[in-house]
Order: sequence, then C-alpha cells, then structure tokens
Amino acid sequence: MFFYCLQIIGTIFFAISGALSGYRKDFDLTGVMLIAFAVGNGGGTLRDILIGSTPVFWMQQPMYIFLTMLTGLVVFFVAEHFDVTSKAFLIADALGLGVFAITGAQKTLTFGLSPVVAIMMGVLTAVGGGIIRDVLCSEVPLILKPEIYATAALAGATVYVILHAFFPEIKYVAGIACALTVILIRLGTIMWGWQIPTPSWLKAKIR
Amino acid sequence: MFFYCLQIIGTIFFAISGALSGYRKDFDLTGVMLIAFAVGNGGGTLRDILIGSTPVFWMQQPMYIFLTMLTGLVVFFVAEHFDVTSKAFLIADALGLGVFAITGAQKTLTFGLSPVVAIMMGVLTAVGGGIIRDVLCSEVPLILKPEIYATAALAGATVYVILHAFFPEIKYVAGIACALTVILIRLGTIMWGWQIPTPSWLKAKIR
Amino acid sequence: MFFYCLQIIGTIFFAISGALSGYRKDFDLTGVMLIAFAVGNGGGTLRDILIGSTPVFWMQQPMYIFLTMLTGLVVFFVAEHFDVTSKAFLIADALGLGVFAITGAQKTLTFGLSPVVAIMMGVLTAVGGGIIRDVLCSEVPLILKPEIYATAALAGATVYVILHAFFPEIKYVAGIACALTVILIRLGTIMWGWQIPTPSWLKAKIR
Repeated sequence: MFFYCLQIIGTIFFAISGALSGYRKDFDLTGVMLIAFAVGNGGGTLRDILIGSTPVFWMQQPMYIFLTMLTGLVVFFVAEHFDVTSKAFLIADALGLGVFAITGAQKTLTFGLSPVVAIMMGVLTAVGGGIIRDVLCSEVPLILKPEIYATAALAGATVYVILHAFFPEIKYVAGIACALTVILIRLGTIMWGWQIPTPSWLKAKIR
Repeated sequence: MFFYCLQIIGTIFFAISGALSGYRKDFDLTGVMLIAFAVGNGGGTLRDILIGSTPVFWMQQPMYIFLTMLTGLVVFFVAEHFDVTSKAFLIADALGLGVFAITGAQKTLTFGLSPVVAIMMGVLTAVGGGIIRDVLCSEVPLILKPEIYATAALAGATVYVILHAFFPEIKYVAGIACALTVILIRLGTIMWGWQIPTPSWLKAKIR
Repeated sequence: MFFYCLQIIGTIFFAISGALSGYRKDFDLTGVMLIAFAVGNGGGTLRDILIGSTPVFWMQQPMYIFLTMLTGLVVFFVAEHFDVTSKAFLIADALGLGVFAITGAQKTLTFGLSPVVAIMMGVLTAVGGGIIRDVLCSEVPLILKPEIYATAALAGATVYVILHAFFPEIKYVAGIACALTVILIRLGTIMWGWQIPTPSWLKAKIR
C-alpha cells in the first residue's frame, strides 16, 4: 500500500516532466497528454517488455492511462506558472526516480531473475521514461549526461537488491534505503555540486 | 476482406512516407528500403510487442516484408517526381492513419483487453510508424506537433471502440465511421485550418 | 564454441563503439558504461523482443552485462588514445557486424520462423545496436546513411540463410561465408570506395 502510493506519485511526477517538455516544444493539447502518458508509463513498459510480462502493466490497470493523461491535461493549462527549477520539484523528481528504481528491481526479482538483472532493470525503469521523453523531443537524453541521474538510479537499485538479498523479510527497509540513496545523491548533485568523472573533467585534471 | 485491402493500402502509404523521408535525407537504396519496411510495419510491430503477440505479425505474414521493401525500391527511383503536398497524397495518408487506428484497436479487443486500452493501441498503431520515421531521421516527431495528427487517430479509435462496444454485430460500420472521422479531421486541418490549442495559441489568446 | 567466441568479440566491439560515442558527447562514467551496455546488447535485445524470446538473452546470461559495462569502464579511461579510423578497428567492427548478422538469423531460424524473416532479423540484430547508439546520442542513424553498413548486413544474412537452407549440415561454412561477405563489402567500401546508389548520386548521373 505504501509502495503503491509511492508508485502513483512517481508516475505523476514523470508524467509532469514529460508534459512540461512537450509544452516547451509547443506540442498541442493531445501531444502534451500523450507525451505525459508515454513518459509516466514508459519506464515500466520497457521493463515489462524486456522481462516478458505482456500485456504490459497499464493494460491490466487502465487507471495509469487516465492518471497520466489527466496530468498532461492539467499541466497544459497551468504550465505557465510552473517553476521546474524549484527545490520542491527537484526533490519530487528524485523521489519518482527512487520509486521507479525500486519497482523495476522488485518486479524483476519477482520474475525469478538474478539480482544483477534486477539492478539493470531498476535503472532502466527509472531512466526509461526520461529517455523516451528526450527522444520524442529530439534532445540528447539528459539521463546520460553528467547530472548523476543514471548514477543515482544505479546506486539506489544496487542498495535495494543487496538489502533485499540479505534481509528479504524487511523489504520496506530496503525500499526506503533505496529511495534515500537516490534522493541523497540527487540532492548532492543539485545543492552541493557533486559530480562523477566526465571526459572533459578527466582531461582538465591531467593538464 | 474489405479490411484486409485497407490494411494493405495503409501499409503501402506509410511505407511511401518512410521512403520519402529517407530519400530526402539522402539514404542509400538499402536505407530507403529498410526505412520503408520500418515505417510501414512499425506501428503494428509496437502494438504486437506491447500486447504480447509475438512473433510479431510480419513474421507470420512475410508478404508485409516484400510489400514494404518493394515500395521503398519503387519510391527510390520515382521520388523525384512525387508531390507530397498534393491533395491525393494527403487523403491517402489520412486513410492509412484511419485504417491503422482500426486495426490497432481491433487486435487489442480480440486479445480481450479493455476498450480504453484498445483506444490507446489504436493511436499507437497509427502514429508509431511515423514516430519511428522521425526518430530514424532525427526530427522532432511531427505526430506530436500541432497538426492534429495524433488527435485524428485518437478520435477515430474512440469512435471505433464505442461503436464496437454498443453495436458489435456491425463492425464494418464502426470501421467506416472511424475512417471517416480520421479523414474528416485531417481534411479539416489541411483545408480549413482547424487546430486544437497549443501553448503559443493559449498565450496569444490571453494577451 | 567457435561462434560463441565470435559472439563475445562482436559484443565487445559494439560496446566499444557505443562507449566511444558517449565519450565524445562528454557523458559521465555511468553514462559511458550504460551506453556500452545498451549498444553491445541492443541488437540482440530487439531480436529477442520481436521473436518473443523473453526474458531477453542477457537476463539469462548476466555475463553480457558485466562484459559490456567493463568494456565501457575501460574505454572511458583509454578513449583518449583510441584511433577509431585505424584499419584494425574497422576490420573488427566489420567482424562484429558479420557475427551479429549470423546470430540474429540463426536464433530466428531456431524459433521456426521463415528464411526471409531470418534475413530481416539478421540485419536488425546487426544494425540495432548502432541505431540505439545514434538515437541516444541524437545523431541521424549512420547505418541508414550511404556507408553500405546495412547493405553489408543484409548481404551477409542472405548468404547465411541461403547456405543454411541448402546445406544445413555445414552451418560453420554458412557462418564463415556470411562473415566473409560482410567483411568484404565493408572493406570494399572503406578501402576502394564502393558505394550503392543514393538520391544525390542518381541525380548527378542523370544530369
């Protein structure tokens, strides 16, 4: 139930992020609603296709269709007043990332696949929606750029899978530790300028 | 049989649209044939993957492979003389869009999935090929831009699913109503400048 | 065993190619490792999804996850000294292309699908990783551009499927003939400037 609520919140925040991108590209109302749907549900859809869980989740729970399209509709009319650089938005985004890393890893483990596969699927579920957003808007996927976005998802999914392997009875703890890891890393990036090496950083250091 | 013919025609028109995009980007002959194949069959392939109908349809009916590759071959040599802005081409394109919205919705209902899922899959089947085309040619997917392309598919699929639900015995009527809806909306856009709200239109109106 | 080794080599070379693209776009370390993973395993993943062989291959053989991520890690630190235009690199790349064309066709035939489908899947497996690379880096997929890349894969997969159909008992010969075809065509392109018609070449010839 706790995770279910988090899942809903994560989906809404990804849908908002997709709708805002479409809005900035001047997509029409339908386009904004469809990109909200695609980004909110994209990561979980890729996960379900790769592990072979078809029809994919939103076909069995159409609530996710309404939820994301409605989010797109609302964003279309209020986007003018949104401040996507606000701290609140970035924390919500980090929470969404953390939640999706958990659900991706969890569903993969439930399918009987190995822990390392669960980590990869946690990352893919978390970053998949964002990749779809950037591809549909024809931008270089931000997730792969030096913002520690993928790294946060990778670290969170790893924490979750390890804790889940050693302490299977306390999966809430594993989930919370995962979400905290992601949020901590994202906050570290945003507020204190943490970064992991990029080629240009490497070269600057050598010189 | 009627729908089968429409399906063939829709596939050919999407293949032409893909081949023309590749031609304009100066792809070589193989590239043009492959993009014709990818765009002509892309929407249905995405549909089959998401609902779990694998191997996908063109693996069971290789005719679709030959049909689209041959279309690409022909386009490569005659593209110079094509006028893609002609009314005939745009009506054919609208027909293809309508047909794919029907087949997407129909196959999804056959799989026992809910009507709202069928509407979404009608849209995805209709616009999926175009998204693949634009991604392969590295353009912002036109479908999401203010051309009422996705909206036409959404309206058509909705009409089809509703009529199919209430009058299951007259599926030809539902199909024809769907195709007419799509064609009407596309024509309205092209000839009479219909449009649905975009962010820039909204802002202009407020000022 | 022979093919297994070739498969490993092909995967590594595609992972290198993905990692180098990410490196040039200044992705961070995680980004480079993830793109190496996505490009090295992308073609086979698309193949498995389309033919319905899920969970996809790297979920059952996590070795491919480690192999590609490790390749990305190494490339990140040595990329400065790589010469991607060297003959050795291009021959290795051609070898990878040939190997993936074989494995794509082979697995499709094993699934009981028709020879023409096997050819298409050979092409898709060979070029899929490169398409994913170019989409993630937001470039026009090079594979579709006039470099006889897709053509080489198409020719190789065709040779493999035909030889396999007529001489099923000598599949090593079919595999070697396929790889040689791909390498020959790629070398012809690189060293002797072979090319197949493009629109601009066609127009130049007419004038």
